[in-house]
Amino acid sequence: MSIITIVGAGMMGSAMSFPASENGHKVRIVGTPLDRGIIRHALSTGCHMTLNMQLPDDVEFYQFDDVEKALKDANLIIGGVSSFGVDWFVNSVLPIISQDIPIIMVTKGLRDMPNGSLIPFPIYMNNTNVNKNLSISAIGGPCTSYELAKHHQTSVTFCGENLAYLKKFKSMLETKYYHISISTDIFGVESAVAFKNAYALAVSIAVGISQENSKHNVSQHYNTQAALFSQSLTEIAKLIKLFGGKQNKIFLAAGDLYVTVFGGRTRLLGTLLGKGYSAKDALEELGEITLESIAIVEATAKSIKILEKQKKAKQKDFPLLFHLYEILFHNQKVNIPWKLFEIIE
Amino acid sequence: MSIITIVGAGMMGSAMSFPASENGHKVRIVGTPLDRGIIRHALSTGCHMTLNMQLPDDVEFYQFDDVEKALKDANLIIGGVSSFGVDWFVNSVLPIISQDIPIIMVTKGLRDMPNGSLIPFPIYMNNTNVNKNLSISAIGGPCTSYELAKHHQTSVTFCGENLAYLKKFKSMLETKYYHISISTDIFGVESAVAFKNAYALAVSIAVGISQENSKHNVSQHYNTQAALFSQSLTEIAKLIKLFGGKQNKIFLAAGDLYVTVFGGRTRLLGTLLGKGYSAKDALEELGEITLESIAIVEATAKSIKILEKQKKAKQKDFPLLFHLYEILFHNQKVNIPWKLFEIIE
Repeated sequence: MSIITIVGAGMMGSAMSFPASENGHKVRIVGTPLDRGIIRHALSTGCHMTLNMQLPDDVEFYQFDDVEKALKDANLIIGGVSSFGVDWFVNSVLPIISQDIPIIMVTKGLRDMPNGSLIPFPIYMNNTNVNKNLSISAIGGPCTSYELAKHHQTSVTFCGENLAYLKKFKSMLETKYYHISISTDIFGVESAVAFKNAYALAVSIAVGISQENSKHNVSQHYNTQAALFSQSLTEIAKLIKLFGGKQNKIFLAAGDLYVTVFGGRTRLLGTLLGKGYSAKDALEELGEITLESIAIVEATAKSIKILEKQKKAKQKDFPLLFHLYEILFHNQKVNIPWKLFEIIE
Repeated sequence: MSIITIVGAGMMGSAMSFPASENGHKVRIVGTPLDRGIIRHALSTGCHMTLNMQLPDDVEFYQFDDVEKALKDANLIIGGVSSFGVDWFVNSVLPIISQDIPIIMVTKGLRDMPNGSLIPFPIYMNNTNVNKNLSISAIGGPCTSYELAKHHQTSVTFCGENLAYLKKFKSMLETKYYHISISTDIFGVESAVAFKNAYALAVSIAVGISQENSKHNVSQHYNTQAALFSQSLTEIAKLIKLFGGKQNKIFLAAGDLYVTVFGGRTRLLGTLLGKGYSAKDALEELGEITLESIAIVEATAKSIKILEKQKKAKQKDFPLLFHLYEILFHNQKVNIPWKLFEIIE
C-alpha cells in the first residue's frame, strides 16, 4: 500500500481517486484555494460536487491550508490542475514537495515560448522550478473524468522521462477498466493531447453547419465532420513532427480528438461558430469562459509564425488551424478553405 | 458538356447525378436488373425511392435492357454497384464498354486473393476483364449518399492509375460542396476505405457497451469509443502498409471510419454485440443482411493468416481485428483484449 496525494480537487484529479483507491492505496485529495467549496462539501458528505458522485469511502479530504499534512509520507503525487493552474502549481506546490516523491500531472498540454517552441507542461514545470530534481510525468489520452469515475473502459498514456517510474505508476494505478500505455515521448504525447483541443473546435464547426442545414432535413450529417476530422489529423501529424514528437502519437491524437468533439464547451463554441455566430457573439452567448482550445489555437498559430521567420515551418501547411485563428482572433466568419485541403498526388 | 452515364441506380451512384448535372453534363442513370423498381418509379416521378428525393430534372433513366442506349456516346461512366455487385459489373457491363470511355467506380474496397493479397477493386476488375484496355478508377473517402444529395460539404478522393484522367474527372465533377482530392495510390485509398468498415464495427461495439452501462447513468460515453478508435487507426495504418498503400492514407481512413461509426447497419450490428448479443443472435435480430464490414473482417483475417505462413505478417499485430473475427465467425462474446493494446515505449 502506498499513499497517493491528489493536489487539486477538480473533476479529473478527483476521478483518479477511483483507480488509486481500488488498487489498495491510501488516497488523500487536497483542494487548491479555488476548491474550498468542493472540499467543504466532500468533508461533510463524501460527495464530489461537480462529478456529482460519492468518492471511495476511504478517501481523505484536505483544504489547501493543510497541504503539508496531506503531502506527508506520500509515495506519489497526482497534480490535478488545469493548464490555467500550472503556474500556481509551480509556485505554490512544487517548492514544498520532497525531491524523492514523483509527481504525475493530469494537466495536459504545451506552453508557448518566446522563441516559437511549445514545451510540454512536465518539462516546462521542471525548467521553471527551483526544485530541479523533481520527477514530473503526465497523463495523456482520451479520458473524460466522469466516465473514469463511472468505471468505463478507458485507455490513457503516461509519459515522462523516467521509464522505471512510469512502469511503477502503471502498476500502482491500472485496473480492469483503466488501461495504461507508457511512453518516454513526452513531446509526442503532450502535442497530441494539446493540438486535439484546437482541432476539436474545427470538427465541431461542422456540427453547427449540419444543425443549420438540418432545419430542412432531420437525417444525420457526418460527411462534413468527417472531412474536417481528416484534415485535422493531417495537420496534427505535421504539428507533432514540427514540435518534436514521434509520428505514432497521431493514433493517440485521433482518439482524443474523437472524445473531445463529443463533449464539453469546445463543442458548444464550435457549434455556434458553424451556425454563423462570430467568435465574439459565440463567446458572449457561452458566458465568460476560458477554453484550452482557444489558448492552444493562439499559441500554436503564433509559434508557427515565429518558426516561419526562422524558415522552420510554413503557415500554409496548416490552413485549418489558421482559419480557426482568424475566426477566433480577427472575428472572421466561418468559411472553410476546402480548396486548400485538396491533395493531388 | 459531356455525357455521363451512371450504371447502377443505388443511392450512391444516383447521388452522383447532383454534382454531375450541376456541372452542366447530360446525366443518364441505368439500373441494374436489381434496380427495376427504382427506375420504374423514377421514370414516372423523377424521384429516387431509396434516397427519397427528386433527382435533377434533366437526368434520364434507363432500365438495364436499354443499357447500350444509355452508354451511347458517353464520355464518362460512373459504376454505381456495391462490392457485392462487382462480378456482375465485370461480366455484364465491362464487355460492352468501348475502351476509349473511362470508368470511375463508387464501389469501394478490396477483393481477397488465394495467395493472401487483397486487391483494390479497380485493379481486380481490370485483371479479370477480357477488355484489358479499359481505364477504371474509383472514388474513396467519407461520403454518405444522402448527404451528398443534400449538398453537404463533402471531401472525397478519386484514385486511379491515370493522373490525367483523374484531373479530368475532378474538373468534370467538383462543385462548391463536393471537394475532390486525386491520388495514384490506389492500394492506399482502397485499403483505407475498405479496412475502415471492419473497424467501424469495433468502435460501434463501444456504443453498445455504453448503452448497457447507461441504464444506470444518462450522461454521454465516449472514452471507450475513443480507445477503440485509436486502436483501430493503429491497426489500419499497419494494414495499409502491409497491403501496399502509402501511410498518409491513414488520414483518409480516419475520416471515413468516423463517418461509418455514425450510420448504417454496421453500427447497429456493433451496438448489439456490445450489448452482449452473440453474432448469431445479432444477425438474426437485424434480419438477412450482407455487410461489407463482415466481409472485410473475414477477407483480411484470412489474408493475414496466409501471409503469416509466408512470414510476411503477424496475427498478433492485429488484436482488435482478430477479436472481431472470433466474434463474427466463431461466435465468441465481446471481451475486448485491452491488455494487448497497451504500448510500452
